[in-house]
Amino acid sequence: MAIRMDINSDMGESFGRYTIGNDAELMTVITSANIACGWHAGDPAVMRETVALAVQHGVGIGAHVALPDLLGFGRRRMEVSPQEIYDYTLYQAGALAAFAEAAGGRLQHVKPHGAFYVMCAQNPEYADALARAVKALGDDVILVMMGDVAPKAAAAHGVPYMPEGYIDLNYNAQGGLVLERSKQAWDPDEVANRAVQIATQKTVNTIDGTTLPMDVKTLCIHGDAPNSGEVARRVRERLEAAGVEIVPMREMRG
Amino acid sequence: MAIRMDINSDMGESFGRYTIGNDAELMTVITSANIACGWHAGDPAVMRETVALAVQHGVGIGAHVALPDLLGFGRRRMEVSPQEIYDYTLYQAGALAAFAEAAGGRLQHVKPHGAFYVMCAQNPEYADALARAVKALGDDVILVMMGDVAPKAAAAHGVPYMPEGYIDLNYNAQGGLVLERSKQAWDPDEVANRAVQIATQKTVNTIDGTTLPMDVKTLCIHGDAPNSGEVARRVRERLEAAGVEIVPMREMRG
Amino acid sequence: MAIRMDINSDMGESFGRYTIGNDAELMTVITSANIACGWHAGDPAVMRETVALAVQHGVGIGAHVALPDLLGFGRRRMEVSPQEIYDYTLYQAGALAAFAEAAGGRLQHVKPHGAFYVMCAQNPEYADALARAVKALGDDVILVMMGDVAPKAAAAHGVPYMPEGYIDLNYNAQGGLVLERSKQAWDPDEVANRAVQIATQKTVNTIDGTTLPMDVKTLCIHGDAPNSGEVARRVRERLEAAGVEIVPMREMRG
Amino acid sequence: MAIRMDINSDMGESFGRYTIGNDAELMTVITSANIACGWHAGDPAVMRETVALAVQHGVGIGAHVALPDLLGFGRRRMEVSPQEIYDYTLYQAGALAAFAEAAGGRLQHVKPHGAFYVMCAQNPEYADALARAVKALGDDVILVMMGDVAPKAAAAHGVPYMPEGYIDLNYNAQGGLVLERSKQAWDPDEVANRAVQIATQKTVNTIDGTTLPMDVKTLCIHGDAPNSGEVARRVRERLEAAGVEIVPMREMRG
Repeated sequence: MAIRMDINSDMGESFGRYTIGNDAELMTVITSANIACGWHAGDPAVMRETVALAVQHGVGIGAHVALPDLLGFGRRRMEVSPQEIYDYTLYQAGALAAFAEAAGGRLQHVKPHGAFYVMCAQNPEYADALARAVKALGDDVILVMMGDVAPKAAAAHGVPYMPEGYIDLNYNAQGGLVLERSKQAWDPDEVANRAVQIATQKTVNTIDGTTLPMDVKTLCIHGDAPNSGEVARRVRERLEAAGVEIVPMREMRG
Repeated sequence: MAIRMDINSDMGESFGRYTIGNDAELMTVITSANIACGWHAGDPAVMRETVALAVQHGVGIGAHVALPDLLGFGRRRMEVSPQEIYDYTLYQAGALAAFAEAAGGRLQHVKPHGAFYVMCAQNPEYADALARAVKALGDDVILVMMGDVAPKAAAAHGVPYMPEGYIDLNYNAQGGLVLERSKQAWDPDEVANRAVQIATQKTVNTIDGTTLPMDVKTLCIHGDAPNSGEVARRVRERLEAAGVEIVPMREMRG
Repeated sequence: MAIRMDINSDMGESFGRYTIGNDAELMTVITSANIACGWHAGDPAVMRETVALAVQHGVGIGAHVALPDLLGFGRRRMEVSPQEIYDYTLYQAGALAAFAEAAGGRLQHVKPHGAFYVMCAQNPEYADALARAVKALGDDVILVMMGDVAPKAAAAHGVPYMPEGYIDLNYNAQGGLVLERSKQAWDPDEVANRAVQIATQKTVNTIDGTTLPMDVKTLCIHGDAPNSGEVARRVRERLEAAGVEIVPMREMRG
Repeated sequence: MAIRMDINSDMGESFGRYTIGNDAELMTVITSANIACGWHAGDPAVMRETVALAVQHGVGIGAHVALPDLLGFGRRRMEVSPQEIYDYTLYQAGALAAFAEAAGGRLQHVKPHGAFYVMCAQNPEYADALARAVKALGDDVILVMMGDVAPKAAAAHGVPYMPEGYIDLNYNAQGGLVLERSKQAWDPDEVANRAVQIATQKTVNTIDGTTLPMDVKTLCIHGDAPNSGEVARRVRERLEAAGVEIVPMREMRG
């Protein structure tokens, strides 16, 4: 049986008169979209348009849930309670689910954004609240994250879980991501090589020259690099050339 | 067959540290709750708590959708497009529906709030956009409004529609509501008399001394009068004493 | 004595992670900046940076006050009260004035933005509230607008007033502006011709082929056209070649 | 020379339709008001009204600056940068200063609110950014805080500093405050006794039975206890009976 892999990307981050991202181009390449829900980015009109684009291309619809911090693009930690993690997830993903259903689609997954992601990746109480919220959204809604904490919370609540790997960021020897100050253009082949290695060998090379195991079901590619469309196409072509089947994560469930 | 009537009230209007309303008391009397969705009032925590209270008392859960104007409590008209009416309704009602489903309930109805209500009651394009959004939320979701414009839009889209009457406001000779500058305590018997007349005779007396026909399925009672709990109980007792069966509007469908 | 003219442009409209406009380039050409104050665009960091740029280039600092509508970029009318016009102006301009003073500058002028502008240009009560707020900000703070209503309100409150003309929009026969659906690149010479005509002949040609009188002290140039920098430079060069002295509006007072 | 003491209280925390606090009553007793600036509480209308009340009673006008978190009432820490601390302080205090000046008053002091307060009390970088912002607001604007960190930052930037003590909260043996879960009615005499001891003996008793030195120039009294008006009056009466002169902090400068 062929190796299967999903490709996810953050979508729908424009807001009002402000436009960012490269959604129309990337949506033709990826299989799952993490769609902003108006708290760190996005607005109801952008959500509707982005969902329509996803449905048109058969891309899985995910809620990119975030802290209430449009000014900080959801990147600043806030001292919220686990209950607030639950409430904020349900609110945002519920709003997105309505747009998905109005367009004839369904909510496929939930992925936290920015500081919300890091907080839930580190703190078991936050991860538990997040998993409970995803469960409340439907038995088949998938939680997408990385690390050791979230999958335990997902398992405890019977939530389908898909681990993700990053292909346009470097990993350090501890398996952590090396964040960039500002988005650079990436070498498409370098990103594609990493994607193929992760998919076919289940390993990733770190900046320290070591190799770590990496068993993931979806690869995250960022849309904000200047050449993100080219990078994404190269990644997909190279994965397919290596015999990897690119499918939305909902098809990997069960 | 007994006359049946729903009683609806605005609920969940607290926000963060700010508390208003008398939800716990009124929820024991009413049959449908119009729950704020965070745009004019309410927040995710309040939504969760209000939905839980509604489920506990068997009260129908409605989305009280509004313009994006927390500062103005949704009472100021904004020059939005019909598309924005659609998008804002779907966003807010979708968020509330998620809380309803998480609590084992379902979204029963949508009722616009404040300026949003007036705009949709007057403008056929707005009413059409609103009805489309309610339809997208589910075939059995009810639109609650008054006037002639909204029921036509509802019918055009196959949306169940329930007209409402106001019992703690006065009507003028044109059938319009006489809005109060500030909330006064109401005479419970006066409000109850009006409720009984509307329910049993399908008429209402105006401040000009005339009598107008009024055929409605739900009576709206405000929760912000100082004695709103007493008023609501008196209304319900007097309606039941007059042989009116008080039921959630979802039971009147079909 | 030479004809003197100010050139104003909207600045500081970026927000959080969202960037728009061409501030660094335009700031070298204009003499007065209308700086967004966080209500329709802008944020405290952008305000500080934009003020610093203005001080560096000797550009007059103006508060571009707006309705509380970041989602709609301040372009949607809201049914606010005159008192709210006053309060919102004072709040926003006060915040900007603090940044101006912290950078060694001063608040030079106030110009309403978008729907706020149109509302104050049409409604004498709004214009009066706006003029009162500008007066409260300092005796020498200038109000910039167009039309007949605002200058009367300014005069009534002893507020310095500078009428403005638009050079990158067309006028209709009634002296109204013909708004564009989306920003097109403008022909720099066409815009410069209009600027020179307004400055030297005090007239403007309309799209109907008539010529209207136009006696203004500042010319507004938009920063959001693709070639706005080139257009602005051409305008300034052509004005100076025609003997017009380009100075910040504060130098035209008294 | 008589001992002099200021009494400060948080004011202007209502927002839109939401009302909290007991401003009209407390404003007759206190000498300095920390007025919310719209970020954790308050809005432009409330700011104007609160400033007018302060001017009417000769109460010093202070900016109660906060994190951008209306939903959390400014009580949740956020991972902001020192530059953001500076920018947010200048924005909020600038807005309030405009209302103060419009009412014929002046900005007397700045006091951070909630999480902002704690962050600046603990982190020297935050305290430095705060002090720089206060300096930029005027040479005579006072910073009000407690602890060891803030006064150093104030001194480094030549900012007048007034340490404050809390009289309606308990202190632990380390000099920290014992925060209450919810506001209880306080025993007016207990609070007044603590105030008199702090003012006349420059000490405070802790819940552990020890006595700590406490040399402060202003006493903070909370307005959200059910009997806050009575408590404040008792405190002031008892302080005056003990020979303490109650004056706005601006009169203690220099």
